[in-house]
Amino acid sequence: MLNPQLNSNGELQHLLALRDLPKDIILHILDTATSFVSVSDREVKKVPLLRGKSVFNLFFENSTRTRTTFEIAAKRLSADVINLNIAASSTSKGETLLDTVDNLTSMNADMFVVRHSQSGAPFLIAKHINDHKRHHLHVVNAGDGRHAHPTQGLLDMYTIRHYKKDFTNLKVAIVGDVVHSRVARSDIHAMKTLGVPEIRTIGPATLLASGLSELGVRQFTNMDEGLKDVDVIIMLRVQNERINSALLPTTQEFFKSYGLTAERLALAKPDAIVMHPGPINRGVEIDSAVADGSQAVILSQVTFGIAVRMAVMSILAGN
Amino acid sequence: MLNPQLNSNGELQHLLALRDLPKDIILHILDTATSFVSVSDREVKKVPLLRGKSVFNLFFENSTRTRTTFEIAAKRLSADVINLNIAASSTSKGETLLDTVDNLTSMNADMFVVRHSQSGAPFLIAKHINDHKRHHLHVVNAGDGRHAHPTQGLLDMYTIRHYKKDFTNLKVAIVGDVVHSRVARSDIHAMKTLGVPEIRTIGPATLLASGLSELGVRQFTNMDEGLKDVDVIIMLRVQNERINSALLPTTQEFFKSYGLTAERLALAKPDAIVMHPGPINRGVEIDSAVADGSQAVILSQVTFGIAVRMAVMSILAGN
Amino acid sequence: MLNPQLNSNGELQHLLALRDLPKDIILHILDTATSFVSVSDREVKKVPLLRGKSVFNLFFENSTRTRTTFEIAAKRLSADVINLNIAASSTSKGETLLDTVDNLTSMNADMFVVRHSQSGAPFLIAKHINDHKRHHLHVVNAGDGRHAHPTQGLLDMYTIRHYKKDFTNLKVAIVGDVVHSRVARSDIHAMKTLGVPEIRTIGPATLLASGLSELGVRQFTNMDEGLKDVDVIIMLRVQNERINSALLPTTQEFFKSYGLTAERLALAKPDAIVMHPGPINRGVEIDSAVADGSQAVILSQVTFGIAVRMAVMSILAGN
Repeated sequence: MLNPQLNSNGELQHLLALRDLPKDIILHILDTATSFVSVSDREVKKVPLLRGKSVFNLFFENSTRTRTTFEIAAKRLSADVINLNIAASSTSKGETLLDTVDNLTSMNADMFVVRHSQSGAPFLIAKHINDHKRHHLHVVNAGDGRHAHPTQGLLDMYTIRHYKKDFTNLKVAIVGDVVHSRVARSDIHAMKTLGVPEIRTIGPATLLASGLSELGVRQFTNMDEGLKDVDVIIMLRVQNERINSALLPTTQEFFKSYGLTAERLALAKPDAIVMHPGPINRGVEIDSAVADGSQAVILSQVTFGIAVRMAVMSILAGN
Repeated sequence: MLNPQLNSNGELQHLLALRDLPKDIILHILDTATSFVSVSDREVKKVPLLRGKSVFNLFFENSTRTRTTFEIAAKRLSADVINLNIAASSTSKGETLLDTVDNLTSMNADMFVVRHSQSGAPFLIAKHINDHKRHHLHVVNAGDGRHAHPTQGLLDMYTIRHYKKDFTNLKVAIVGDVVHSRVARSDIHAMKTLGVPEIRTIGPATLLASGLSELGVRQFTNMDEGLKDVDVIIMLRVQNERINSALLPTTQEFFKSYGLTAERLALAKPDAIVMHPGPINRGVEIDSAVADGSQAVILSQVTFGIAVRMAVMSILAGN
Repeated sequence: MLNPQLNSNGELQHLLALRDLPKDIILHILDTATSFVSVSDREVKKVPLLRGKSVFNLFFENSTRTRTTFEIAAKRLSADVINLNIAASSTSKGETLLDTVDNLTSMNADMFVVRHSQSGAPFLIAKHINDHKRHHLHVVNAGDGRHAHPTQGLLDMYTIRHYKKDFTNLKVAIVGDVVHSRVARSDIHAMKTLGVPEIRTIGPATLLASGLSELGVRQFTNMDEGLKDVDVIIMLRVQNERINSALLPTTQEFFKSYGLTAERLALAKPDAIVMHPGPINRGVEIDSAVADGSQAVILSQVTFGIAVRMAVMSILAGN
């Protein structure tokens, strides 16, 4: 089976998931992002690479934060951006997902940024586009169900490379609700591809993800053990709706076992960096002293996230 | 009484309804749209005709799809677009419709695209603007109550002309809930003006529209009879909220009597085209095999719709 | 304590409140606005002063009207505008106000336009920005609680100067719910700074604001007395939610005592102007004959409001 993300020349046609994405494409995205970091730093934060292109933010699931990052990235590339909160519109009128996509395609769309609560929705759209040979059209997965969040994975890789230079000598720990996390899944696949030798996940037994040990991931339920000597700590967000459920205890108990405090951070390497996809829950998964401390690179992730999304969009539009 | 849509030179000042719109103006819009079809096909889908103009999408009734088409059209003309969902804002504060309009006018608006659940609202706004001699301001009716949806009517005429070339030898059938349809009303007026010799409506007796026979429209309750030898079939959307009411039976029963199937389509001319304003209800008013079949031009309508809206906006801004 | 609105050169860094704003800065804003009035009157209503800048409309409280004025102003300055309705997003996920701001800052924001139901929120953000020495970042208060609405105050000053030329010989009356009005507060501070010799407030005893007499403001509960010989009448909007409460009687009773009618207007100077921040409640605080009459300058306020906001944004971006 062909990789639906690549065109017949092996170039990136859609960005759907980091699993199965070749290493050279991941590195090309990270390298391209470097030039866009400086664009966002300039007086005039704009390049004309997507001028006259129509980018549709198709958010079937609400996410102001993620939508904003794509909107900024697209506008800095000079695209025309149309925000569609689909939850509230056509689907409520009974139109199918692919009919909605066909309609927007007929409006001469160039790119769909798709967020959906159901895993696989962006793949379905990309397959439909490929089946109809609409090679000028591109899909970016902005998070689908529990499956993947590839731009978050890429910005995490950008951040790790920025601070650690080399992936091939790192120990990385991902902490929290791994089983429900599309961020964790995208990070793990990217790190495997980029050669990170030791990936650990840390969390309560109820939130352990199956299938990870086959990927060589070491799983810890004891945080102190899991953090020992790591170079990178990726904290996951605790979803409020999971607290007080069968899966998660109270926030206080969670923090006691898995909250990142200065004491626990001291177990990692002295120059370890602390990452978080945001928004952070202070006092739930991370202590304020750590979130605001010198090892946290959480806000750098945000900055790099804009650059990475600009890179993805400009590479897609060029292919 | 002067036609409120025309300025003192007989040029288009507002687009409110296709009734009473002179044939040469309709044809001028269709001819202008032709050039914009190619703009949307280009790498850089942008022309500077409305650069620095402020277009307000005033949607007193929610319609993401229609709003999107106008937003895209305005942005491809380089206008600044402001979307106002008025249902949720000023009117809830008790401000009158015309006070809202006066306020936005004072912000140096250039064009209002107005959608309203009440028939006549865009006329009220246009009359107010004319009374105050604000000749630089233009109103486009994006659908008012059951009354008119002129840009949909124009894109339907564009589509018919594109596929059939000549209006004066056509049989056209409009199928479904004609009585509640502003699309049907706009289409019928435009077809009369453009010289379509035979217009038919097909639907259950409860949804027959009065006053159409005076326009020379033939009404059918039997779909097989109505479709016989037609060149164009315009399917109307069944509104979900009307199903299971006194006016409409279940969706299955409706489909049995008035759903467009391949068998029924075979009653029309072999080269008949199938149109629909969207979003389609598969299996309610149209069978999937027909919607996706070679005679359906539903997605072309969407493409032409952007071009027609660009044409209307650029003509208005030039007058 | 340093004025958080000014940078170390005494230039405007943030616009938070008109209190403590030096007279020369207020006059500089008004003078700059004059040039922008003509921009909004041109065919191409656009200048490139904020090209490539990212302006975030952070509306923690819904206000379509105010948000629209800032959006238009920013777009006419060629900025990229991102609208964030924060009530519905991150804060509901438990993120703190300053974490939200830090995130958007990391996306290389240039300006935050902040509306918040809590007095002081824009100050908190500005202080945070100043503490972190992010001198390229600017905050504009678009209304905070009952505290301040400085751009409304400035556009009111622009309007008064436009019609009356000189502030130093004026009698100005502010009528209505003064105690809850951030507009009244901003107007009074600006008028004091600009040398208006006589400021009056008129309203029911329940809505009298304490602390105003120290500013030299004369308070009236009898409207006829308060309006006598004034040059400028600033009507305040009656908030619907206050009607029928302990503070306000029915709208009819309010209108009887404090509604501006033609008869009452005749008590003021013959060339007195009538102002209102909008949206107006016809028949509650103002009679239609007055709102639509020759002395009303309410719609001019709206026009000047765009120019004043363009002036504020361009001055901030230049400092």
